Amino acid sequence: MLNTVSADRVTHSDLANAVRVLAMDAVEQAKSGHPGLPMGAADIATVLFTKFLKYDAADPAWPDRDRFILSAGHGSMLLYALLHLTGVKGMTIDELRNFRKLDSKTPGHPENFMTPGVETTTGPLGQGIATAVGFALAERMLNAEYGSDLVDHYTYVLASDGDLMEGISQEAIALAGHLKLNRMIVLWDDNEISIDGPLSLADSVDQVRRFQACGWNAMRIDGHDPKAIQRAIAKAQKSDRPTLIACKTVIGYGAPKKAGTSKAHGEPLGAEELAGAKAALGWSHAPFEIPDAIRDAWAKAGRKGRRLRKAWADRVKALEPEKRAEFERRLKGERPKALADAVAKLKDRLVAEPQNVATRKASEIALEVITEAVPELVLGSADLTPSNNTKTKNLTAISPGNYAGRYIHYGIREHGMAAAMNGIALHGGYVPAGATFLVFTDYARPAMRIAALAGIPVVYVMTHDSIGLGEDGPTHQPVEHLAALRAMPKMRVFRPADALETAECWQLALERTDGPTTLALTRQNLPQVRKEAGQGNLSATGAYELSPASGKARATIFASGSEVEIALAAQKILDEQSFAVRVVSVPSLDLFLAQPEKVRARIIGDAPVKVAVEAAVRFGWDSVIGPDGIFVGMHGFGASAPYKDLYKHFGITAEAVAEKVLRTHNL
Amino acid sequence: MLNTVSADRVTHSDLANAVRVLAMDAVEQAKSGHPGLPMGAADIATVLFTKFLKYDAADPAWPDRDRFILSAGHGSMLLYALLHLTGVKGMTIDELRNFRKLDSKTPGHPENFMTPGVETTTGPLGQGIATAVGFALAERMLNAEYGSDLVDHYTYVLASDGDLMEGISQEAIALAGHLKLNRMIVLWDDNEISIDGPLSLADSVDQVRRFQACGWNAMRIDGHDPKAIQRAIAKAQKSDRPTLIACKTVIGYGAPKKAGTSKAHGEPLGAEELAGAKAALGWSHAPFEIPDAIRDAWAKAGRKGRRLRKAWADRVKALEPEKRAEFERRLKGERPKALADAVAKLKDRLVAEPQNVATRKASEIALEVITEAVPELVLGSADLTPSNNTKTKNLTAISPGNYAGRYIHYGIREHGMAAAMNGIALHGGYVPAGATFLVFTDYARPAMRIAALAGIPVVYVMTHDSIGLGEDGPTHQPVEHLAALRAMPKMRVFRPADALETAECWQLALERTDGPTTLALTRQNLPQVRKEAGQGNLSATGAYELSPASGKARATIFASGSEVEIALAAQKILDEQSFAVRVVSVPSLDLFLAQPEKVRARIIGDAPVKVAVEAAVRFGWDSVIGPDGIFVGMHGFGASAPYKDLYKHFGITAEAVAEKVLRTHNL
Repeated sequence: MLNTVSADRVTHSDLANAVRVLAMDAVEQAKSGHPGLPMGAADIATVLFTKFLKYDAADPAWPDRDRFILSAGHGSMLLYALLHLTGVKGMTIDELRNFRKLDSKTPGHPENFMTPGVETTTGPLGQGIATAVGFALAERMLNAEYGSDLVDHYTYVLASDGDLMEGISQEAIALAGHLKLNRMIVLWDDNEISIDGPLSLADSVDQVRRFQACGWNAMRIDGHDPKAIQRAIAKAQKSDRPTLIACKTVIGYGAPKKAGTSKAHGEPLGAEELAGAKAALGWSHAPFEIPDAIRDAWAKAGRKGRRLRKAWADRVKALEPEKRAEFERRLKGERPKALADAVAKLKDRLVAEPQNVATRKASEIALEVITEAVPELVLGSADLTPSNNTKTKNLTAISPGNYAGRYIHYGIREHGMAAAMNGIALHGGYVPAGATFLVFTDYARPAMRIAALAGIPVVYVMTHDSIGLGEDGPTHQPVEHLAALRAMPKMRVFRPADALETAECWQLALERTDGPTTLALTRQNLPQVRKEAGQGNLSATGAYELSPASGKARATIFASGSEVEIALAAQKILDEQSFAVRVVSVPSLDLFLAQPEKVRARIIGDAPVKVAVEAAVRFGWDSVIGPDGIFVGMHGFGASAPYKDLYKHFGITAEAVAEKVLRTHNL
Repeated sequence: MLNTVSADRVTHSDLANAVRVLAMDAVEQAKSGHPGLPMGAADIATVLFTKFLKYDAADPAWPDRDRFILSAGHGSMLLYALLHLTGVKGMTIDELRNFRKLDSKTPGHPENFMTPGVETTTGPLGQGIATAVGFALAERMLNAEYGSDLVDHYTYVLASDGDLMEGISQEAIALAGHLKLNRMIVLWDDNEISIDGPLSLADSVDQVRRFQACGWNAMRIDGHDPKAIQRAIAKAQKSDRPTLIACKTVIGYGAPKKAGTSKAHGEPLGAEELAGAKAALGWSHAPFEIPDAIRDAWAKAGRKGRRLRKAWADRVKALEPEKRAEFERRLKGERPKALADAVAKLKDRLVAEPQNVATRKASEIALEVITEAVPELVLGSADLTPSNNTKTKNLTAISPGNYAGRYIHYGIREHGMAAAMNGIALHGGYVPAGATFLVFTDYARPAMRIAALAGIPVVYVMTHDSIGLGEDGPTHQPVEHLAALRAMPKMRVFRPADALETAECWQLALERTDGPTTLALTRQNLPQVRKEAGQGNLSATGAYELSPASGKARATIFASGSEVEIALAAQKILDEQSFAVRVVSVPSLDLFLAQPEKVRARIIGDAPVKVAVEAAVRFGWDSVIGPDGIFVGMHGFGASAPYKDLYKHFGITAEAVAEKVLRTHNL
């Protein structure tokens, strides 16, 4: 009968129930998935999408759209149902039927790189809400640069109990509250259920009070009352602070037996319960069937932002041509041509005036010119600014309510920083580079993994990259972190040997637009080992012959970062004993391993003895030197002492390298 | 003049200033370190150590002592000064003079494995306060088992702004508040300064309100007023909830120019400022010189708990012998003999009745007998209990105010869980085993690293260990996590192939008392590949020949976990083509690599072709198969689909293994 009424007569419940039944049907068909959240949060999402969201299904990536982030990514069918119903191209009913199947646009958790209309990859709890802080911040920063005519939108988040229990969310919430990101609105699906059972098994936080303590506007509503949801969002839009709307909901709303229980969370309802739920919701249609009137009403919601989008596009077209080109370049994520020129000039300068400095300092030298060449580069640090050397003189910091700036004091929140960086990059208009000590990549790792998986171009400036940091001791000395990062697919790791390589690595990091890059930089000073700029960017193959052998090479020493100096000194010692060796600098082991076999073979060469020197664990180096290769590096955790003492103590010296080469050769 | 007065005339300020000057002097001598916190928090620590802490410097590891955890580990000199002044054996003035030097007992950040009287390794912010939750919980649990005569103490934490900004602390605070751990008292060094400058650059949280929202008792005091500190701690001791005491302090208290600024945080004061600080504090003694009267007064504070300790020891001696032996065994961390017997019996049973189950299920089967044999084993999950299979029928969960139980619902707090596990283990009396999905080791990694570094015996039960988890997709599918964990020094990683290996790995995990163990377990069912129990524990060398070649081996296939089944099937395919290969099961690659070379060589064998099969990245496997070895596994992130489709899609099949072996052989 609904098929015969007009779209205008369709009620809120009809719309919300369409979302519910699609979620139920898809999970049932997939024989796995999470029906509980879509059923519980359908009312919230329906009000948001039909009454508020600035959104045009015809162009779900339109830059000035409102963002909707499903932080509770397991409820992916909520999002897929909305994208389908509003009419996003490609999000057909067949995609919903293929939920959780290979090559569908409907994977188990939302992936922005697979599905049009998905803003960011979510699933690991807490990531969505923390990424949203970056979206909301980028919106304000771009607004400060380009004005409200071009940038003026909200960031909405649907978050679950699990999101709010994860520590990362508290870092994000504190940062958003501090920065007064009032365009950020979190709708909390407050259903009091988690996988183990009632939430009260493990949690008794007063979330509203906790958000308020962090500077948020917060309110409680009935998450099944569309009028209350509408009033709350309208109020939130006017707040001078970010807003939490705690929406009391029933998980699996409508399911006769499983609603309100953990049984509704993560498995199909089962035929009987599903039938019961449809009956309770007054839904009498076949699986995956949506009456035309409801389809039409949803399609109308999908067109809601079209007029706004076109008006915005007209304003962009009316811009002064140079400004327009720059704005569009920024939004497309294309890097400026000035970058390569700036780095080339810097390299020439470094050849003329070598800098024997720590690579963290070399990074600062590089940033002084790169920040001028790349206006979208936004730096920041998790409260280690004076140690990370990331704040060049030309940068000013943003502050609460004042977003004109290119430096972010993230606070002691490495994980929140990395997630916010994801959001800043995904929003568009900026390339974020955030800094801490290399050892603390452990804190940021889940968000770094999202960057790798979703191919988000961000740069991690990770200083104090080995025992070379000295006295702070093993808690602060990374030994396994290079390996752990190199093991992560699509993560690029650079560990430059000197000021010149540092400039090259920064260029490669910024030219990369399909994933994240980690720069591992020293605390201690290093000599500039590169005397020539070379043809192009020598670091681009990940490794290159830095110092050829004085005769036929009897060994090759591979080294990265601060240990290249040691490799060169060992080469000299061996040379004095008429033992010719070559030295290969390896600024990026993972990039090197990704080269074609021919390139690798040429660089590895055929000297019979292979040595790797790195002040870190061996793990991964056998891919170059083989199980029989010589490794000079760390075999366990570090220690607290002046760094020169530590290098001696752990036997990472030129003498040790030379001695081992000779011993192996004489075997 | 102070040298002539009696210890009784020594004032609070004299005592606190002694701590301050030792910290200043040691940092100055080391030419690096953090004077600001010890100077700012000296009053708090002095009141705690002289008026409250149940502590005997003659036996700083006495089991029923109060715990003091310096969460702000960079302020290590505060702790070292207290241990020295109270008279802990070995903590001589020379150790303070050697602050941050190699082989001293005074490393840059506190390490419990180097320094008597240090409860846990701190330095990475947030770890101390989160570990303290485990200490406080273990105290209540052991109290529930053994009564207040034997277990009755407090856990004090000194935390910094940085601790409270880290997400992990919010997980810990929420958990402690939920569980009503009223023996936990946090003294917050509220100095409004962080490294980047005033805290207001990055934070504006109302911490008192945030703690209250998490169910804590919270109050604000002047952190330099000894009477206020005393009153607050006395009040906190009587609370029915954990307590935050926000102590407003001045960082670098006493330093004429640097006090109250970030300059006082992380570098020596410099000669002039140091002299000025000593003058301001009225301190006229030579560096590292403490007047006898002050020494005596501090020594007296160090003896404060002696009577209590002796009375406790008498009560232990008076216990019924069997109970006493068990209590002492538990506190010493020795494992019961029943463990080996129980596993041996289980293995026999599995040989008789093979179980073709997921290894997460095999783990549950093992736990059914192991939890009976090992009463100190405490299980738990970060809200994935029904998926991790960690709650055996014989376990009951603890709950707020009721600590009689051996199961912990940690909530969706993987990082908080791992840190709490560290505290539970370090407290003594328990071996904690906590569970989540393997991919979420990323969330827990910083606390797992503390366990590895400090050699803490805990077990991580990490299920859903590969693309074998299927539809949840790449955000939930670990591919690099085995490598990342294997790269961590002292971390043991097991990935058993079947029910029998799972039992063996559990035994090895629990018998290990010098570090953490990760068990990587499948979601999907596996055939039991082991038909015999074998001599002893075959998994103990990390790898062993599971299936010999039918003739002279022309290839060896190494595999772990769920891919052992595939390796065996490939062996069969190749056998049918008269191509003899052997299969080596590798339940622990890292344990295998740690074997003597002879053992490794024997197990690796001399078949010309080497193959590794693991549904994860290759990174690390070249240490066995070499750069020319064949690897069948993952080359990037996973995908969302039923798991059998994924194995086919990614080419991890017996057919693919056989085909690659033949192709290589024919080259």
